[in-house]
Amino acid sequence: MLYTKPLANLIGELQKLPGIGPKSAQRLAFFLIRQPKSEIQSLADALLEAKERINACSHCCNLSAEDPCELCRHPGRQDDILCVVAEPKDLIALERTTEFKGRYHVLGGVISPLDGIGPEQLKVAELLKRLDNHAVQEVILALNPTIEGEATTLYILRLLKPLGLRITRLALGLPMGTELEYADELTLARALTGRREL
Amino acid sequence: MLYTKPLANLIGELQKLPGIGPKSAQRLAFFLIRQPKSEIQSLADALLEAKERINACSHCCNLSAEDPCELCRHPGRQDDILCVVAEPKDLIALERTTEFKGRYHVLGGVISPLDGIGPEQLKVAELLKRLDNHAVQEVILALNPTIEGEATTLYILRLLKPLGLRITRLALGLPMGTELEYADELTLARALTGRREL
Repeated sequence: MLYTKPLANLIGELQKLPGIGPKSAQRLAFFLIRQPKSEIQSLADALLEAKERINACSHCCNLSAEDPCELCRHPGRQDDILCVVAEPKDLIALERTTEFKGRYHVLGGVISPLDGIGPEQLKVAELLKRLDNHAVQEVILALNPTIEGEATTLYILRLLKPLGLRITRLALGLPMGTELEYADELTLARALTGRREL
Repeated sequence: MLYTKPLANLIGELQKLPGIGPKSAQRLAFFLIRQPKSEIQSLADALLEAKERINACSHCCNLSAEDPCELCRHPGRQDDILCVVAEPKDLIALERTTEFKGRYHVLGGVISPLDGIGPEQLKVAELLKRLDNHAVQEVILALNPTIEGEATTLYILRLLKPLGLRITRLALGLPMGTELEYADELTLARALTGRREL
């Protein structure tokens, strides 16, 4: 009764989004109904089109509107180096660096028994199949340095070891721009063991 | 090239929303495309329906899918007391208190020369017209105690004064649950001048 029905409905739908509470949902809804019809139509279209057209690439399992995805099709990328990430957003983060020129494989998550995610929910079989043709020389396991990420790294490491490939992981150490004084012990310890010759 | 096209498009649309930056837009987009089709369809429908159906009530100028709105039509509300608010969200905030049983009038903003909003952009003529039939005995000017709100209060006060109605404003004073020690001087001064007999 507080809100007129279509408004209550819109606020309800917006509240389902992550990080959007009742206050933000109300603010967004009032903002949205003040926008011109065309803006609302573009947003609604973008939502439906994204859902409709985006699927997993059959090669790398990344989200894409095309299959194979742009990265898998790209002629300028190296085929001999494969970077394994947990989620599409991790791939995006790595691409932003413009440092990596190889291919990717997206697992679709990490092993997390508490969330009911075991290895069989991840695209591990697809990863092994991609390594079958021996084109890949190095696999970078670029998973988050969290408990779940580490467990997943170890799990995949054990599977890949027999294949005789070079298997690497991202360096652990001090983030750029921080001060030694404020680094946690674990990070600093990893930075020490991972020190590099100058 | 970072994002597949429909995803880039969705992120772009989400970034137009207030308080949603690039990071949040990416997070929302990844969340949304993982939802079932039906969820996305409901959100898109809610957006379009809200925009399509919600208009200003011809009586109180509040947003409503019906005209006159539910509050204007409600038989249990007092016709002799009218609460003037700036925005629909202020009406919602007052309704949440369940303290007020009269009718509302929504101005649609406050006088703010910097934003190009003068009295003629507000629903002031509509307010005066509603007072024509002499049913209203008291007008509560419930505008924000900000510079713009105060200016608007004074402007409307001057217009209504000749009508001989009771004109009131919301009490200014200490917010509940706060400590005197931390109240700003202006608030505390208002709390003093507005003190009440016990």
